[in-house]
Amino acid sequence: MDFFEGTEKLLELWFTKSNSKCTVDNDLRNIPRDVLDYILGLVNCKILSSTRTRDLDSYVLSESSLFINKQRLLIKTCGTTTLLNSVRPFIEAAFKICGFDEVEDVFYSRKRFMKPELQKYPHNSFEEEIEYLQELFDGGAAFALGRLNGECWYLYTLNKPVSIDAPDQTLELIMTKLDPEVMKIFTKEVSSSAEEATKKSGIDTIFPNALLDAYLFDPCGYSVNAILPKGHYFTIHITPEETCSYVSFETDAPTTDYPELIQRVLDIFKPGQFVLTFFANDDSIGRHFTKKHYKLKGFDYDTYQETNVKNYNVTYAHYTKKPI
Amino acid sequence: MDFFEGTEKLLELWFTKSNSKCTVDNDLRNIPRDVLDYILGLVNCKILSSTRTRDLDSYVLSESSLFINKQRLLIKTCGTTTLLNSVRPFIEAAFKICGFDEVEDVFYSRKRFMKPELQKYPHNSFEEEIEYLQELFDGGAAFALGRLNGECWYLYTLNKPVSIDAPDQTLELIMTKLDPEVMKIFTKEVSSSAEEATKKSGIDTIFPNALLDAYLFDPCGYSVNAILPKGHYFTIHITPEETCSYVSFETDAPTTDYPELIQRVLDIFKPGQFVLTFFANDDSIGRHFTKKHYKLKGFDYDTYQETNVKNYNVTYAHYTKKPI
Repeated sequence: MDFFEGTEKLLELWFTKSNSKCTVDNDLRNIPRDVLDYILGLVNCKILSSTRTRDLDSYVLSESSLFINKQRLLIKTCGTTTLLNSVRPFIEAAFKICGFDEVEDVFYSRKRFMKPELQKYPHNSFEEEIEYLQELFDGGAAFALGRLNGECWYLYTLNKPVSIDAPDQTLELIMTKLDPEVMKIFTKEVSSSAEEATKKSGIDTIFPNALLDAYLFDPCGYSVNAILPKGHYFTIHITPEETCSYVSFETDAPTTDYPELIQRVLDIFKPGQFVLTFFANDDSIGRHFTKKHYKLKGFDYDTYQETNVKNYNVTYAHYTKKPI
Repeated sequence: MDFFEGTEKLLELWFTKSNSKCTVDNDLRNIPRDVLDYILGLVNCKILSSTRTRDLDSYVLSESSLFINKQRLLIKTCGTTTLLNSVRPFIEAAFKICGFDEVEDVFYSRKRFMKPELQKYPHNSFEEEIEYLQELFDGGAAFALGRLNGECWYLYTLNKPVSIDAPDQTLELIMTKLDPEVMKIFTKEVSSSAEEATKKSGIDTIFPNALLDAYLFDPCGYSVNAILPKGHYFTIHITPEETCSYVSFETDAPTTDYPELIQRVLDIFKPGQFVLTFFANDDSIGRHFTKKHYKLKGFDYDTYQETNVKNYNVTYAHYTKKPI
């Protein structure tokens, strides 16, 4: 039986300068392609394609995605990749090549793996990952949100008292037990190209103004990176195999109506259950979203958690499809 | 160097009848004293004294406390006691002696131990405790609130969809790094009796109308059980040794001003840091308390978490004394 660990490891690294303002030269996009290739080699993945706008560089990877803007880098990788191997070299590149001298914040998160025993060091357990990160950053705050004996999502963040000067928010939907009919779209058997799968599924309707870079894997699997106006993004990764179906949707786009956006995504993928995570700082338009427990059509939540860390409120919720 | 694990294991067991109403005969207080003694022997503690009102039986134990009312039993034990050994015999007694036939809910919680390596089976880790409880109850929900790499509090609850018919709330303050001057009061050297320690410290002023049963240990240490009107309680346990100082305060008394009550307790014990936990169901007067992040005089919180389980909202927060 085929198994693929769709569950992504997600890492954000933010850089700044400690004693002076950042200049135009302080830009993570100055890291040369061969350095990126080298670092991604340590993670056991590679770049498949790239897209670039004034605000954001986007890379579709053999295992998920990489986004880079001036001061922030976001990388998520699935399978048995060794994402945390990239932390130290990314920091070195940011310091030596881009002239930063301080890590402003770090976010590392993932859902519990379906098969943790298949992972490689330092991803064998969250305890191991915490230890690795603590050694690098000397501190930080680690949380397990959700149920330790069920669905659960891990988060490590630096939790330094930094001054966030702009609204910021990230929504993630981690969906499992998806509708097999929908999942078929993301196979070469049913769709002849990534574009066809994008249209057939309705992914192109989520943000109609997005610049899409989609990839359809052989024989199945799908990734899309989307650049939105003002340097925002969304990204979707799909493992369609019925025994281990997994779809993640992630965006930092601000919206006044998150429940509507979430419902739009759920209507496309029809998951049996999903984890919702949402980060919002105090200036985010999404801050009100964290104050209510949203009912989503056709789903019940069994856990709803709000966690305050230094600069962010983090929402975690687990929803299950209502019995019909 | 003397070490004592003040950190308590806290267990609540609620009983009901599945197909009929409870009668006057269905009463946990019908469990005979020798059966209680036997069960407490399995936990490695014993009864030191008892108090009784119409609504509530209270026992001060050699390691903490036991409260029993008609349908609910609350036991907290510290040190290296093996509290979970009591679950099965308590259920047997409730079924065979008191005529109940259903466990309505279970709450097991504790802060991370200071020295987990000193604990005995099944308390060597929360994973072990979850496994033990899951085997007994076939399911349930387990959480780790707070920071996995810092202060952290564990909770297991049955999480059945039960119909709670009365307001219910429990506040717990788990204080550490306490003022050594205050802690001295709870030694035989400074106080000649439990009553003297109660008055000197101001514990008698927390709820002036309480029926107190206090115990001063030799050479140091203090416990008090208090029965309040309408069968409510509070209980305080103190480990005064400077290297491992620990004070817990717990009450199910409803109040319209929790911050004021908390401040009163903090003013007495002067902790360097504390964990606050608060359970409230939807009918509780304390429900509004869970909607705000309270600032407490002289303290900052670094983590504030709200978790929704079936019938309850659970607040977890960790506060540290502000630097002067």
